[in-house]
Amino acid sequence: MAAPEKLSDIVTSFLDVVHDRLVGDRRGAVADYIPQLADADPELFGIALCGLNGRVYESGDTHVEFTIQSASKPFVYSLALDDQGLDAVHARVGAEPSGEAFNSVKLEAGTGRPPNPMVNAGAIVTTSLVEGSSADDRFARILARLSAFAGRDLSVDEAVFASEQESGDRNRALAYLMRGAGSLTAPVAETLETYFRQCSVLVTASDIAVMGATLANGGVNPLTGERVTSAETCQHVMTIMATCGMYDYAGEWLLRAGLPAKSGVAGGLVASSPGEFGLGLYSPRLDASGASVRGVVAAQRLATRFGLHVLHRPLTLSAAEVTAANDELAAGLGAEQDAVATQLLQENADDLAVWRLRGYIDFDGAERLLLDLDSWLEARPADRESPAVIVLDLTEVTQLQSVAVWMLAALATWCRARGMRVIASDPQGRSLGVAGLSQSAGFDDAVRDAAAMTGANPDD
Amino acid sequence: MAAPEKLSDIVTSFLDVVHDRLVGDRRGAVADYIPQLADADPELFGIALCGLNGRVYESGDTHVEFTIQSASKPFVYSLALDDQGLDAVHARVGAEPSGEAFNSVKLEAGTGRPPNPMVNAGAIVTTSLVEGSSADDRFARILARLSAFAGRDLSVDEAVFASEQESGDRNRALAYLMRGAGSLTAPVAETLETYFRQCSVLVTASDIAVMGATLANGGVNPLTGERVTSAETCQHVMTIMATCGMYDYAGEWLLRAGLPAKSGVAGGLVASSPGEFGLGLYSPRLDASGASVRGVVAAQRLATRFGLHVLHRPLTLSAAEVTAANDELAAGLGAEQDAVATQLLQENADDLAVWRLRGYIDFDGAERLLLDLDSWLEARPADRESPAVIVLDLTEVTQLQSVAVWMLAALATWCRARGMRVIASDPQGRSLGVAGLSQSAGFDDAVRDAAAMTGANPDD
Amino acid sequence: MAAPEKLSDIVTSFLDVVHDRLVGDRRGAVADYIPQLADADPELFGIALCGLNGRVYESGDTHVEFTIQSASKPFVYSLALDDQGLDAVHARVGAEPSGEAFNSVKLEAGTGRPPNPMVNAGAIVTTSLVEGSSADDRFARILARLSAFAGRDLSVDEAVFASEQESGDRNRALAYLMRGAGSLTAPVAETLETYFRQCSVLVTASDIAVMGATLANGGVNPLTGERVTSAETCQHVMTIMATCGMYDYAGEWLLRAGLPAKSGVAGGLVASSPGEFGLGLYSPRLDASGASVRGVVAAQRLATRFGLHVLHRPLTLSAAEVTAANDELAAGLGAEQDAVATQLLQENADDLAVWRLRGYIDFDGAERLLLDLDSWLEARPADRESPAVIVLDLTEVTQLQSVAVWMLAALATWCRARGMRVIASDPQGRSLGVAGLSQSAGFDDAVRDAAAMTGANPDD
Amino acid sequence: MAAPEKLSDIVTSFLDVVHDRLVGDRRGAVADYIPQLADADPELFGIALCGLNGRVYESGDTHVEFTIQSASKPFVYSLALDDQGLDAVHARVGAEPSGEAFNSVKLEAGTGRPPNPMVNAGAIVTTSLVEGSSADDRFARILARLSAFAGRDLSVDEAVFASEQESGDRNRALAYLMRGAGSLTAPVAETLETYFRQCSVLVTASDIAVMGATLANGGVNPLTGERVTSAETCQHVMTIMATCGMYDYAGEWLLRAGLPAKSGVAGGLVASSPGEFGLGLYSPRLDASGASVRGVVAAQRLATRFGLHVLHRPLTLSAAEVTAANDELAAGLGAEQDAVATQLLQENADDLAVWRLRGYIDFDGAERLLLDLDSWLEARPADRESPAVIVLDLTEVTQLQSVAVWMLAALATWCRARGMRVIASDPQGRSLGVAGLSQSAGFDDAVRDAAAMTGANPDD
Repeated sequence: MAAPEKLSDIVTSFLDVVHDRLVGDRRGAVADYIPQLADADPELFGIALCGLNGRVYESGDTHVEFTIQSASKPFVYSLALDDQGLDAVHARVGAEPSGEAFNSVKLEAGTGRPPNPMVNAGAIVTTSLVEGSSADDRFARILARLSAFAGRDLSVDEAVFASEQESGDRNRALAYLMRGAGSLTAPVAETLETYFRQCSVLVTASDIAVMGATLANGGVNPLTGERVTSAETCQHVMTIMATCGMYDYAGEWLLRAGLPAKSGVAGGLVASSPGEFGLGLYSPRLDASGASVRGVVAAQRLATRFGLHVLHRPLTLSAAEVTAANDELAAGLGAEQDAVATQLLQENADDLAVWRLRGYIDFDGAERLLLDLDSWLEARPADRESPAVIVLDLTEVTQLQSVAVWMLAALATWCRARGMRVIASDPQGRSLGVAGLSQSAGFDDAVRDAAAMTGANPDD
Repeated sequence: MAAPEKLSDIVTSFLDVVHDRLVGDRRGAVADYIPQLADADPELFGIALCGLNGRVYESGDTHVEFTIQSASKPFVYSLALDDQGLDAVHARVGAEPSGEAFNSVKLEAGTGRPPNPMVNAGAIVTTSLVEGSSADDRFARILARLSAFAGRDLSVDEAVFASEQESGDRNRALAYLMRGAGSLTAPVAETLETYFRQCSVLVTASDIAVMGATLANGGVNPLTGERVTSAETCQHVMTIMATCGMYDYAGEWLLRAGLPAKSGVAGGLVASSPGEFGLGLYSPRLDASGASVRGVVAAQRLATRFGLHVLHRPLTLSAAEVTAANDELAAGLGAEQDAVATQLLQENADDLAVWRLRGYIDFDGAERLLLDLDSWLEARPADRESPAVIVLDLTEVTQLQSVAVWMLAALATWCRARGMRVIASDPQGRSLGVAGLSQSAGFDDAVRDAAAMTGANPDD
Repeated sequence: MAAPEKLSDIVTSFLDVVHDRLVGDRRGAVADYIPQLADADPELFGIALCGLNGRVYESGDTHVEFTIQSASKPFVYSLALDDQGLDAVHARVGAEPSGEAFNSVKLEAGTGRPPNPMVNAGAIVTTSLVEGSSADDRFARILARLSAFAGRDLSVDEAVFASEQESGDRNRALAYLMRGAGSLTAPVAETLETYFRQCSVLVTASDIAVMGATLANGGVNPLTGERVTSAETCQHVMTIMATCGMYDYAGEWLLRAGLPAKSGVAGGLVASSPGEFGLGLYSPRLDASGASVRGVVAAQRLATRFGLHVLHRPLTLSAAEVTAANDELAAGLGAEQDAVATQLLQENADDLAVWRLRGYIDFDGAERLLLDLDSWLEARPADRESPAVIVLDLTEVTQLQSVAVWMLAALATWCRARGMRVIASDPQGRSLGVAGLSQSAGFDDAVRDAAAMTGANPDD
Repeated sequence: MAAPEKLSDIVTSFLDVVHDRLVGDRRGAVADYIPQLADADPELFGIALCGLNGRVYESGDTHVEFTIQSASKPFVYSLALDDQGLDAVHARVGAEPSGEAFNSVKLEAGTGRPPNPMVNAGAIVTTSLVEGSSADDRFARILARLSAFAGRDLSVDEAVFASEQESGDRNRALAYLMRGAGSLTAPVAETLETYFRQCSVLVTASDIAVMGATLANGGVNPLTGERVTSAETCQHVMTIMATCGMYDYAGEWLLRAGLPAKSGVAGGLVASSPGEFGLGLYSPRLDASGASVRGVVAAQRLATRFGLHVLHRPLTLSAAEVTAANDELAAGLGAEQDAVATQLLQENADDLAVWRLRGYIDFDGAERLLLDLDSWLEARPADRESPAVIVLDLTEVTQLQSVAVWMLAALATWCRARGMRVIASDPQGRSLGVAGLSQSAGFDDAVRDAAAMTGANPDD
């Protein structure tokens, strides 16, 4: 774990902390139903996070290629939705958690529909619903869609594809079952070939982080700026990921982590924090349900530590609180801080910067601040002897996500460690770099993590 | 449907529209397993919405009392969570959608746990986990919790309670089953008495709207200001409502409506839009799964029309777009509007008000604006002959929820209908009261609804 | 319904009674998943019964060919048992009623075994367990086995086979499912081809009656005298037919009818009464579970009317009863009868025949009597003017099956109608041709049926 | 294992052989859900067999009392059938194997019927269907019925009853479930009290052997001669025992053992061989499904060794074979044997006895022979020096059950060991006491067992 060199390295540092804590977890076993998966190095472990501005933060083996497998399902589902519409797709596949394994044969009585697009049966149906003038054309469109989500041209691992074809008896069974039941109308052999090929597309942890970020960003790839799909489609995809993505313990997953996610049997796991970022994890050892052991723990840890649960309500300050706070600011410590800042501003503009934050500060907002500060620090004349002084005006902040609290704390720690001064104009004691940060347990945790990240007293 | 007299009546008007459209829907049948429910007037229909500032908007029969039934489950679950903690509660009851009916007997193999706290079996367990020195004390605490959520002292319908006791064979079976399996350790008769009593608590549609709003508000009752439970508990409760609240079609519900919700067999339905509002619906005719027919349709319509899906990503404007927009503002039509506003402002301060909106505008933000404007209009000297002019500066708005778009449109329509002028300083053509509102289909819908509400051309 | 010309026509007459009663039952619908089945004439109805001496009794359309379909399963199972042994076969397929439809996908957890050899999945496995040097050889052995059971060379309906192949998606699914689970190890395409071919073998109602009789006869074809399989294998096959042959209402079937049976979707139904006869039914209209409506009712009526339930205990006379009966015989009416018989015997040997029946008289024993009497009557000089007198000595009969009681009563009626005299030496009042036949309800029924059969007063 | 003193002790000796072989089997565990069962001596092991003449053969702990538990179900079902009729009973309880555990909660969709009368839920229904003017009267009738089946006045273990009442949560659940579903209409508390009381009736292995024999004997208790129920009811009861008596492996049980049977959780197991005998087994260690480990193995061994499968077809000789055999008899060895017998008969009538066996010889017939011979031997003057000579004329035997073959072989061995001569007049080489007994593997086994029983070379 390298010390952060730039402010924006703070995010990388946190990924490093999670990586280092989990790398010793050797539970689970590599998938072995085909030789190519069985041969995977079980020690590999990569964590990547892609923000909505397209910056990708990485820790560990984030550039090792692996086959996307079931993590392809949400993205192909998005293509089926765009080709056929929500109603037409769900006339052929349900939207209910199955309470069963990923290769369940349970079809809905009467309709013959598989339970949802995240189990194999449902994914075979969504693959068959992608339009195309031929099987080749259909797969070309799928590969183009996956590539657009990832922001680079992806390719197929032909050896894995051949093995999947050979060992795919159960999927072949599912397909024939659905054809018999009428929920699959396309030819079985062709559809399965496309499905196996889609599962054999090679990606890295960084790729799937970008793919998740594209969903989180309402369909615009934050790396390339390309609109891949609509915001509405992303909402549908993330809903299905939230309720059905983690197979038979979807409810528990939503309760504990609260993030839309999807795992693949090669060890990949993609998650999306709507409006915030995408997460790409890779570690080949799987739990009993076929999800990456370290991937699940890492995603869960990031989600709970950072308060990223989709039903999490950010800390909100009432108007009354803001007014009272402003009064305090004028009269007390806050005012003094302000006075110092003003004096510094007058004395030497090159050494001083002020950022006013407003409204709801989440990961995305905090990340923008880090990147802005990095730019300012880089632009500052290298020969300045006096330390930089940064003023963060939080007066008009109305909501603070836990992850943003942690990022501001880490920012302050990072700056102080380099001799800079950070002065927060914050009337409610949410100040950074001064006493009074300990409103809540979650907050404490964040601060301890931040300290750990800059080298001081990591306590767990 | 009365015409709105105050700006904040706009919300009521919309509830009226929904009410009037659905009141003719007579599908379903009143529950008849006990005489008290069978006797309910099937025509009753009430819709109530409670914002996070405690204002309750109402349409129809929102003051008729009915028994809360299963809609009590999320709130008693919150009490069990607070008494025992998340892990202890879920050691005894699962968190998975059951894919089965509300009175399913399916217990988890090995643990004997019922699937989740929203089916009867699970709710009996959570009731048993509420602490109390005696059965009476336990129920007193439950009643106090329900009352705190509702913001008034609730009471029990003793006749319903007696009938529930008498007809409760299946629930009795569930309780004995769980006692045999070890997931229920409390005495059966006592626990069921408490459970039946909790189901027999009398509420109105308005009450449950406040209850839902308290969840949406992170545990603080917006009516009374009382903190009823923690934000963390509310997150857990709403997650379970989202995944398990609508019984066997939970996944479909989350895909289509995307709101945590819970129905009761007397016809009540409570829903929460986190950070926005609570919804209380009442209509006694039930569908096959035991949920209010009109309640389900109304909740779904409100959720989809207003973009309230928990995984909905608001429209976001990039920094580049904002800058460009500001430039346009200076050079073009926007600037002209601004000039008019400035001139008006100078000429007659009594007739002119400017509101600057910033950041993310959702239902809560838009509602505050309506209430503020109402106050200003009321405070304005009654003898002014010149029309009021209202300027809405949207330049620094970065995100607009669909419902807020609709509310601003309705505001403009309302004001113009009363001879007021509304000038929006909005460089991106999101202006209200001028041409150019038609960016999206959702937006169009909103505008049409707004027009309908003020009497002009309702087209469906 | 022709009047019986020979004594052994009595059995045919009873089949005619059943045929005529049920031919008006037009419930159910012809299978329509392939055109060849859909085109079947729904009015066809054939009943055939084959005794253990190889005589086949027929009523209705017993020579119309149809495809054997699932009625092939017990016979191919017998071949798998002979090739692999009971344990090896049941290591790959269970022996439990599935409580599910014939095309159920339920496999046993852990082993992947289909529930039993009578559902499609299980039958596919047993087909795969038949030995053969090639697919052709394997099918040749199956066809030879079916032919040996039927006592003639059977052939395949190639058009049905082609259609089955085309429409067999669900069976293909089952096969892939089992291959994935390890219970099927043979290649899917080849195994299914053999399976579909086996289902397309053409048989008549008479053929399957002989097939059932071969099972009932402990593996020796009563028509050809060929030993087709062992008595032990027949016991296994009939057990599986008894518990699993009638799909999801196997228990009810065993309770009500108590005969091992198997139906096919083309309308065939084969049943075996161990040690008694085989039954072949054909009528294309099917009930919801896919069994011939008339076939099920006919088999049930024959089984209950004739007391053929496998757990039925025949009427037994204790030693004391027999002794007392002998004493009565000497002293009373019986003796008188005997005296008449002796006198007749002395006077004219050509006109008199005595049959002594001993031990347990069942269908098989009574049928032998009918055939013997026919032979004697045919051999009797045609110019005899005096009537034949037949003496049946029942003194040493210890057990009488219901069907035998009925057959003896019918014999007496037939003879009397032709002016013959029948004198029974039966001390217990079981005499035929004299008063005192009415010991039991079952007996009454038999007599009424017998009367009906010879033209007198059919009352239902 | 004592040497047999009388011919009829041969049966006892065989039970001893089975007892001694299995007594070392200590698999399984004593039921421990109530203290009274947990305290049972796990070493106890009793085997009793009751023939249709009322003779009870015993080995081991056949007089130790234990509670009948679920083995009461078939007998109470018989009472419900007699009180209500088959159709009325099965309108409330199904007849299908459940494929589930004895305490399954699965009720039939639509009807709410439990699957069959042998699982707890079904047995609670049949108990409720027994008529009675009061709960006491109803139980008095049940106790009278059980006593009539056993042939002695039975009583209740009040301590077990009290414990069952206390620990009966799951059964209580089942009862409430069925009351909710309409299949149970009687009051729950009262019905369960009766049910628990019926389960607490004390019996011995010998008692349940008599109970099973009464079923096998068509409803007449062979000990008391009392007609307890009708033959038709016995057929229904034994059918349900055959298909549903052994819980979730009923199909396997019927395939392997082929005997109607029912186990109880205290270690009792009752089986019936229709027309042959009843079997009572007792050993408290249970397998996973709650059936006595040794009981299951012993019943299975007796059934397979003796060819008692209900679908077993006895060896049958055709008429042609019998005629040919008679010819051989006159001409050859058989004739010579006959000549010896005739000579002995003339020389000394006191020393010679001839038995002619006819028709179908099963356990019941062979047992009668043993008892007759015992009587003759006892009646023979004690001072005769010359050995007794017994002639068995088998010429007219048409069918031989495996168990009868074995009994005749054992008879011969027993006689020879005491210096007596046994001469069989049997043209087909089925002779006993001479060479040529080895037609079949089953026969060999029987002979080896017989030898073992008389002390010579037990080989396993």
